[in-house]
Amino acid sequence: MVIFKTVNDVRSQVKEWKKQGLKVGLVPTMGYLHEGHESLIRKASKENDKVVVSIFVNPTQFGKNEDLGSYPRDLERDIEVCTRGRATAIFNPEVEEMYCDNASTFVNITGLTEGLCGASRPIHFRGVCTVVSKLFNIIPADRAYFGEKDAQQLAVIKRMVRDLNIDIDVVGCPIIREEDGLAKSSRNTYLSLEERSSATILNKSLTLAKEALNNGERDSLKIIEIISKNINTYNLAKIDYVEVVDSLSLQRVNYIEKSVLVAIAVFIGKTRLIDNFTFELQ
Amino acid sequence: MVIFKTVNDVRSQVKEWKKQGLKVGLVPTMGYLHEGHESLIRKASKENDKVVVSIFVNPTQFGKNEDLGSYPRDLERDIEVCTRGRATAIFNPEVEEMYCDNASTFVNITGLTEGLCGASRPIHFRGVCTVVSKLFNIIPADRAYFGEKDAQQLAVIKRMVRDLNIDIDVVGCPIIREEDGLAKSSRNTYLSLEERSSATILNKSLTLAKEALNNGERDSLKIIEIISKNINTYNLAKIDYVEVVDSLSLQRVNYIEKSVLVAIAVFIGKTRLIDNFTFELQ
Repeated sequence: MVIFKTVNDVRSQVKEWKKQGLKVGLVPTMGYLHEGHESLIRKASKENDKVVVSIFVNPTQFGKNEDLGSYPRDLERDIEVCTRGRATAIFNPEVEEMYCDNASTFVNITGLTEGLCGASRPIHFRGVCTVVSKLFNIIPADRAYFGEKDAQQLAVIKRMVRDLNIDIDVVGCPIIREEDGLAKSSRNTYLSLEERSSATILNKSLTLAKEALNNGERDSLKIIEIISKNINTYNLAKIDYVEVVDSLSLQRVNYIEKSVLVAIAVFIGKTRLIDNFTFELQ
Repeated sequence: MVIFKTVNDVRSQVKEWKKQGLKVGLVPTMGYLHEGHESLIRKASKENDKVVVSIFVNPTQFGKNEDLGSYPRDLERDIEVCTRGRATAIFNPEVEEMYCDNASTFVNITGLTEGLCGASRPIHFRGVCTVVSKLFNIIPADRAYFGEKDAQQLAVIKRMVRDLNIDIDVVGCPIIREEDGLAKSSRNTYLSLEERSSATILNKSLTLAKEALNNGERDSLKIIEIISKNINTYNLAKIDYVEVVDSLSLQRVNYIEKSVLVAIAVFIGKTRLIDNFTFELQ
């Protein structure tokens, strides 16, 4: 596995591949890779000649009281995951390589970023859009792969790519889950045994909501109530949000008559976990 | 002269040129081209195999009370200027081609954009950065050419390119002036005969300031006073700003010990004109 540490080195290599007419896939990550990431890498490997996995814990998307300092890191294990997924190279820059001292340019999106995770993480998506723009400029890939677990992030990046005419295909990939249904996340490592057991409430409550929708429920408040009531039965769980939103605009929906995203964020102890599903309606 | 109207058409052509190993220059303009633009196009033609001139009056960089509606347009004449400058193609999209109805992504820069023109035009540079990002994504050129008359714009774009790792060389080109010293500008067309005569005060007062600097004056306030006093002798002229700033950070300088940008904006009647020079100090 080749590991690039500098912008110039990874860019030269990718431009060389492009000159040879090869298709390049990019999988942007913050590392501590799990089977969710591995599924993105595998998909990228199937669809492209070369695959670069970027591993960068991006400081600009963390709020002051968030977990930037404690965010888990394990490059050795990440290299194994990238190798298993048949990636070609890793881009693993230091913070100083990505941000100058007086960096002052930001990419931001209004509307889409204000609800859901954006409500409790006000600078998060500005940081995400900025670093993803940078990665797209550094690594001129044909396709970029993102997980559907971060549904709002995926919607935001698709919007950014459309609005700024970025010449890349954004590919969303399904959520990968543990056997008991918990969505795979690097942050699951924060959970104590007891918390880990409680964390299944996210997927369990979403499953109840899905059943209600399949049975014809179309009132968003009812769906939210089903989920909230269920989560609130667990002492360790504290709801950040439970929302039913239009799957494109991410705006709240009262009566469900088009495809909606049902998205939740729940604190299990101190760890904030997210999960979601899209309910398709023609 | 080939005129492209759509993002897809111009992008396909430029990607085809790049595939052939040709160097591409981009000259972003709002049209109504004058000898200043022509000098950019000529320089681009000398330094690249192919040159695209974009002509787009970008609505997002105009404030509500500014001159978007009346901004001068003359595509026929612009084509002649592009031909004389030996451009290869023009990209002349409609507003709807550049901005979707619900476009909501913006590129913005803090610090650099708050003083000088940014003080009286608060959304201007956000609009400039956004549209220039879009143009850079649509037309993957090797080099982009901007005039030094818009000194703050040039500094802002250089900063954006650095901060977002955009893979393009930004080339600044000297101000082109009328015989009586007035900097060439599309907005000069707004001036009545009397105003046109008064408009020479911008360059005249900058010339006095340059003389003072060359004679050893290092106090910014003195430089500002020389310019302001001179401009204020004209009834038709009203100062928007007179500033002496660090030529990179654009922050105000009290004592001049490094290279500075001396920049002014003056209303001549209702027309706002800008001019500047850089005083180099080792």
